[in-house]
Amino acid sequence: MKEKLRYGIVGSGALGGYYGGKLAHAGGEVHFLMRSDLETVRREGLTVRSKDGDFHLPNVSAHGRPEEIGPCDVVLIALKTTSNGALPALIPPLLGPDTAVVTLQNGLGNEELLASHFGARRVMGGLCFVCLNRTAPGVVEHYGHGTLSIGEFKGPPQDRTMRLVTDFQRAGIDAKAVQSLITERWRKLVWNVPFNGLGIAAGANVAQVLNDDALQGEARALMAEVIAAAGSLGYAIRPDFIEFQIQRSWPMGEYRSSSQIDYEAGREVEVESIWGEPLRQARGAGAATPRLEMLYALLRRLAGKAKV
Amino acid sequence: MKEKLRYGIVGSGALGGYYGGKLAHAGGEVHFLMRSDLETVRREGLTVRSKDGDFHLPNVSAHGRPEEIGPCDVVLIALKTTSNGALPALIPPLLGPDTAVVTLQNGLGNEELLASHFGARRVMGGLCFVCLNRTAPGVVEHYGHGTLSIGEFKGPPQDRTMRLVTDFQRAGIDAKAVQSLITERWRKLVWNVPFNGLGIAAGANVAQVLNDDALQGEARALMAEVIAAAGSLGYAIRPDFIEFQIQRSWPMGEYRSSSQIDYEAGREVEVESIWGEPLRQARGAGAATPRLEMLYALLRRLAGKAKV
Repeated sequence: MKEKLRYGIVGSGALGGYYGGKLAHAGGEVHFLMRSDLETVRREGLTVRSKDGDFHLPNVSAHGRPEEIGPCDVVLIALKTTSNGALPALIPPLLGPDTAVVTLQNGLGNEELLASHFGARRVMGGLCFVCLNRTAPGVVEHYGHGTLSIGEFKGPPQDRTMRLVTDFQRAGIDAKAVQSLITERWRKLVWNVPFNGLGIAAGANVAQVLNDDALQGEARALMAEVIAAAGSLGYAIRPDFIEFQIQRSWPMGEYRSSSQIDYEAGREVEVESIWGEPLRQARGAGAATPRLEMLYALLRRLAGKAKV
Repeated sequence: MKEKLRYGIVGSGALGGYYGGKLAHAGGEVHFLMRSDLETVRREGLTVRSKDGDFHLPNVSAHGRPEEIGPCDVVLIALKTTSNGALPALIPPLLGPDTAVVTLQNGLGNEELLASHFGARRVMGGLCFVCLNRTAPGVVEHYGHGTLSIGEFKGPPQDRTMRLVTDFQRAGIDAKAVQSLITERWRKLVWNVPFNGLGIAAGANVAQVLNDDALQGEARALMAEVIAAAGSLGYAIRPDFIEFQIQRSWPMGEYRSSSQIDYEAGREVEVESIWGEPLRQARGAGAATPRLEMLYALLRRLAGKAKV
């Protein structure tokens, strides 16, 4: 790989603004594809406010059309999955022969979607454990965490995986490579399926789920279903991961998941990638997931206009 | 039994006002125990507006304390089950040696509660299929239906069962005796558990549940759980009852269950008698009811202050 990678960021809300901004702030060549914030960022630049230190990028390479950016070495996809329908049109102009396409999106099915359009060989993914909010056009607030786990769609880390990890680490991100990206996605769902889901369906934050015996019981039962589904698909997660997830949730207190925040603010919820696709994969593998099925049916209705 | 029965009505909202009012209008001796509407009814009487004909009872025997009524032949309990905690204090002054205590309330557990306090021998129950609303103090609106299925808590109909059926029929109510009251309660739950429950949890009326494939699937799956639970407890319901219930629901259209109406109006929901008690009985019988468990956990939280 080249000395300096050329990054394209697709979807420049909180997630794209933060990770792209960190790379650019560290001297990387970063081009942002954005829509709603485009004019503001061109005029005023990009601001990240963070407990790790605020910074402002006055001159940002921001574009409204992918053709203006052209081929990149790495495309980071930071769109909400509810906008995945736009990817087949947005990505091709950013691709060279060896461009890696890295989805930083939530849930399942995003790697598969990219692979079906652009070939599995290009596809990588990253799991973001980070609290962010886009508080104004071109302004991202970083509340905490920031771990980024990067992996190949198929197989163990390659040279390019480690190269990305290095770039992010140099930019001050706690990045690491993972042996099995999809296993990690299922492990993340073990938390997101119950807590994001019950957050919406029961209107309960993390503490409210934990402090209600029946809801905590449902959270544990949902976790067991997710683990069983993952196991049926060949992604082994140990059952004691449930207790670990419950225990690590207590300190979160009144934390509301991003899905709950989106829902309560009237924004689109990523129903398909967090609940729908895991449910479909579980069904395909013959795993029994009655609670996930019920939760999905409720969320699809509650969150209104579900998109695949 | 005597020529003319002395009826006491406990809880004189829509249900008690309607059935008690019909009996009184037909010449029965009916005494109403009421709280919130007491002064209005004493002053202005009781009004029933119905497609079957409006009527007004100017002089109603309305009381605020059961001691003012004294022993009755039949006590009809028409309180919401969320007020069941008041029954042990309200009922004893109404009891003579042979008084029948008939719960017209929703769901499961009401007969058992009465039996534990007053002896199983006294206890009967009635299932009301009726659309009522108390539109003002002392005013009940009857929108439709009105079937009343009466049975003994234990065993088949007795003379007193038939006598009650006769009294209600003379009062213009479509009443009948049932062979197994508790089987009928479970059969009613086959509809109430999914439609009342999804009505609240998904914010969906009957048509919205039926027209959403995932929600209709959950309704059917919940029905299957209820039928399996009933079967485990010895109350046989045929599986094709599911299809029957789905088909009979289509003509209801935009109908909202009483639970959904209560919930959306900020009133208490009968979470324990419709979902909690069936779940506990299913668990006791070793039946697997994961969807009912999830739904109950959500409703308990959504409906706020659940009471047994």
